[in-house]
Amino acid sequence: MTDDLLDDDAPLIPDGYKRMDWFRGFGRQIGPLYERLGADGGYTRAFLVCEHHTNGMGNCHGGMLMAFADTAFGHAVSIAKPDHYWVTVRLLTDFLSSAKLGDWVEGTGEVAGIDDDLFTIKGRIWCGERTIMSGTGVFKALGPRARRR
Amino acid sequence: MTDDLLDDDAPLIPDGYKRMDWFRGFGRQIGPLYERLGADGGYTRAFLVCEHHTNGMGNCHGGMLMAFADTAFGHAVSIAKPDHYWVTVRLLTDFLSSAKLGDWVEGTGEVAGIDDDLFTIKGRIWCGERTIMSGTGVFKALGPRARRR
Repeated sequence: MTDDLLDDDAPLIPDGYKRMDWFRGFGRQIGPLYERLGADGGYTRAFLVCEHHTNGMGNCHGGMLMAFADTAFGHAVSIAKPDHYWVTVRLLTDFLSSAKLGDWVEGTGEVAGIDDDLFTIKGRIWCGERTIMSGTGVFKALGPRARRR
Repeated sequence: MTDDLLDDDAPLIPDGYKRMDWFRGFGRQIGPLYERLGADGGYTRAFLVCEHHTNGMGNCHGGMLMAFADTAFGHAVSIAKPDHYWVTVRLLTDFLSSAKLGDWVEGTGEVAGIDDDLFTIKGRIWCGERTIMSGTGVFKALGPRARRR
């Protein structure tokens, strides 16, 4: 049966991760992305490096890692200031190691400082024991938006 | 005839730009991207902001602008050192203005310094008269690769 392909192809997703339900825009285009929420208010986001994330050398494209950093670091603003949109003002990303096709890449961010609506977030992206990227983002919280049901 | 949709939907691409022929990986996923080469060795890359580039507010996603910056700035390394792979070591991106759905976004980079195989590139991304992003990238040239035919 053709539907069996879905099961056969499904990667093993680590416990606690849920697929994010982006159904349009850039979030969907670069997905699937996953999220795991901790009991302490912490979070990690993650993705499996698929063919559509790779560069010419078959590793995860630097642009994908930066796009992931933007969402993985910036989400700390959504945690600190729920129900507000935010935009990225500045992002610095240091590429420390590469991620390969099939790698499970995780990332998170934490608030390092708040000045009015400007949030400075320090973030890290890793694969197992290996740090892939570290960085610092400055994000600006915007006006409120409707709370998600 | 169904094929007419291709013509009806085709956006107007500014003179001199050619669609880049990425047929796999992240380059294809976030495309189409376009390139225009100048007689002086300069270049610009560009893309039209489509639905699959947008964020929750309907503007171009910051992650897309960073991914575009990576290719638009880093290409200066390919110009300076042809037929070599390169990787991104560090990228700093300042978000100065937003790009909207349907905007034609252009970018380029120029070599600011070379230290062995490390290239420092200053880059800019704009839409018409408006600067969208400025940034600085450090890229490392790797070993040679086969010259494209």
